[in-house]
Amino acid sequence: MSAGNYFFKVKTPDEVRGLLRDIARPLMAESIGLSENILGRVLAEDVESPVDLPGFDRAIMDGFAVRARDTFGASSGAPAYLTLAGEVRMGEAASVKVAPGEAVRVSTGSMMPAGADAVVMVEYTDFLDDETIEIVRGVAPGDHVVGSTEDLHKGEAILNSGHVIRPQDVGALAGVGITTVRASRQPRVAIISSGDEIIPPDQPIQTGQIRDINSYSLACLAQQAGGVPMRMGIVPDDFDSLKSCLTAGLEENDIALISGGSSVGARDVTLDVIQSFDGAEVLVHGISIRPGKPTIIARVGDKYLFGLPGNPVSVMVTFDLFVGLLIKLLSGAKLPVWEQRSVRARLTRNIASAPGREDYVSVQLTESEGEMLAEPVLGRSALITTLVKADGLIKIPLESEGLEGDAEVEVVVFAR
Amino acid sequence: MSAGNYFFKVKTPDEVRGLLRDIARPLMAESIGLSENILGRVLAEDVESPVDLPGFDRAIMDGFAVRARDTFGASSGAPAYLTLAGEVRMGEAASVKVAPGEAVRVSTGSMMPAGADAVVMVEYTDFLDDETIEIVRGVAPGDHVVGSTEDLHKGEAILNSGHVIRPQDVGALAGVGITTVRASRQPRVAIISSGDEIIPPDQPIQTGQIRDINSYSLACLAQQAGGVPMRMGIVPDDFDSLKSCLTAGLEENDIALISGGSSVGARDVTLDVIQSFDGAEVLVHGISIRPGKPTIIARVGDKYLFGLPGNPVSVMVTFDLFVGLLIKLLSGAKLPVWEQRSVRARLTRNIASAPGREDYVSVQLTESEGEMLAEPVLGRSALITTLVKADGLIKIPLESEGLEGDAEVEVVVFAR
Repeated sequence: MSAGNYFFKVKTPDEVRGLLRDIARPLMAESIGLSENILGRVLAEDVESPVDLPGFDRAIMDGFAVRARDTFGASSGAPAYLTLAGEVRMGEAASVKVAPGEAVRVSTGSMMPAGADAVVMVEYTDFLDDETIEIVRGVAPGDHVVGSTEDLHKGEAILNSGHVIRPQDVGALAGVGITTVRASRQPRVAIISSGDEIIPPDQPIQTGQIRDINSYSLACLAQQAGGVPMRMGIVPDDFDSLKSCLTAGLEENDIALISGGSSVGARDVTLDVIQSFDGAEVLVHGISIRPGKPTIIARVGDKYLFGLPGNPVSVMVTFDLFVGLLIKLLSGAKLPVWEQRSVRARLTRNIASAPGREDYVSVQLTESEGEMLAEPVLGRSALITTLVKADGLIKIPLESEGLEGDAEVEVVVFAR
Repeated sequence: MSAGNYFFKVKTPDEVRGLLRDIARPLMAESIGLSENILGRVLAEDVESPVDLPGFDRAIMDGFAVRARDTFGASSGAPAYLTLAGEVRMGEAASVKVAPGEAVRVSTGSMMPAGADAVVMVEYTDFLDDETIEIVRGVAPGDHVVGSTEDLHKGEAILNSGHVIRPQDVGALAGVGITTVRASRQPRVAIISSGDEIIPPDQPIQTGQIRDINSYSLACLAQQAGGVPMRMGIVPDDFDSLKSCLTAGLEENDIALISGGSSVGARDVTLDVIQSFDGAEVLVHGISIRPGKPTIIARVGDKYLFGLPGNPVSVMVTFDLFVGLLIKLLSGAKLPVWEQRSVRARLTRNIASAPGREDYVSVQLTESEGEMLAEPVLGRSALITTLVKADGLIKIPLESEGLEGDAEVEVVVFAR
């Protein structure tokens, strides 16, 4: 199929994101144990509790398990007096019972003895003799006790499919005795740097050559987004080299990123190679965004290919908006309603923009008199140092002609 | 030294954080390569560029390298005409020169030929014959050219010691040919669950026992904070068991966390064990915070010990405020001026608090009519599900008596 068969209109960033949401499906699930690298993995099943938690009524203060009604109205002026009927040690089933007028010693974490419905904290008690306890503050039923099913009851939902696993989730799973869950396989991402002028960073350089930047930053970006990166090396801008590298990359990976190819000729080669795969479907060819306009997105079967512009800033912006989203979608992750990485700040200078295009501008964040300031980092998108100096990006919306120098802006800070 | 020698006043959270900032020193540095797991590591050296970047004047558009003055005033009505003097291919040193009235074909990424100071984009040119190029738009010197030292000049600072490495930083290092840097060693964190009632999650449970939750969530929290966790298992609440486990833990680790021991007896054992180490110094014994008040922090030589309350919510709050900070400090990380994980939301109901104590309340975030709402998650700090249902925490300041039900609050969302 030749490029001429396609007529592409430049898409807006929202259209591209919508398209990816519509077509991307989560990868197969696999088992993962709690002691493995489970943090950030995406659940591929709903998880219910197989047990009640804690599973028994549990004291959550040191003191005496009592029948609450035996202490009603107790005060230092008019104490209640109870008879010590034993003790429940932590980790033991309670064998004693609390009859009317009795108290049983418990520690934080002890099982509550039968008959008792509350704990009087040790601070409000005194031993009159070996057997008689004075209580100077009354308790209500349930005070300082966690009920047998108060944390979870058997069959109750703990976590849903699509949940991104956090430390407390791992704790909860351990707490109910679940040591293995099903999680979506992490998307594997092949990374190819293309360009006749690109050489590996550890090799001697000739004038006119440039060291590979993008495959290093892309590998880190893919890892940060929850993918497993595989750097495929550097290929020259010719059909055969790119085709054979991409073929190898797609064999083992779910996504292939080709960065570089910023010249028209190189972009044409990238497009030709993509279209040479059986069943290749070019989804996007040009996005109304700066930097990043000449981005290509295609699909071959259930694999995704991105032709990313060669500029470091374009790479970062297009990764964040599109590749990162696709990695989340292939993981099956339910995204939170909030943007986890945004900071409000006041812009320090005017920024012009052309309507009809979303602009992304690198900014540095500083604090001045308790206010956060966003200072645009000047420098072209061909410069990696623009990004190194910046703390995050601000977006100038599609229809805006720019932002005023004292506007309040939302800065999406770079992940660390 | 007996516990009686210490008289501890409860410290405020800010006092404790200040104390940690005062005494914690970064760990030794080690070498790490760009292809290793370098993301999030903390630089232990200032890094300067050993080279100019890009190192030669570089075209950043496809077109023709020209002397800008030869194109001044060119328009479609009054084009300039230049003679083609050759081409510079990408990755090659430019061997041609541009004399007055001449142009040389270049691609995005090509080295600029001597004599030329700007690039005319191919869109604004036409071939009149094989040798004559018509230019319909003038350019200024420097247009579409990145200067030889525009990204970096030799000796220029790229990154400073204490910087937390991000994807773009790895890209910049690769770009200047630095493939190995010095980074602080990651703090190693021993994690001990103590309690006679605690059993491992994969073992059969008896009534009165409870499965280990905290060592699983703490291991994930330590990893998330940049530490290397080591789970040391579960020890009973007796002096000898805890002492031997803690001794082993401190041998290989920089920080030891003992969770559990929520009963007074268990806390006493923890304190006795800590004080039995030669040169042990108890820094903190009680913090004006809820949950988390009975937290113990001590130092033995250059190792840090934490006695954390046993409740899951206490563990999370005290980890976030104190242990996480210490891990960052031992890594030598310079912390950003902004809180990377906060979201503004409107509180949905009143929350009461006692002045003199910082309260942390778990909230769930929802969006309603474009506004973010923070709904407090009810449930005691003994319940792990409180944290599983929550998206983050809000802080009620030390001197506040609570928050009104429609207050705007800052929610520190849990890391994912």
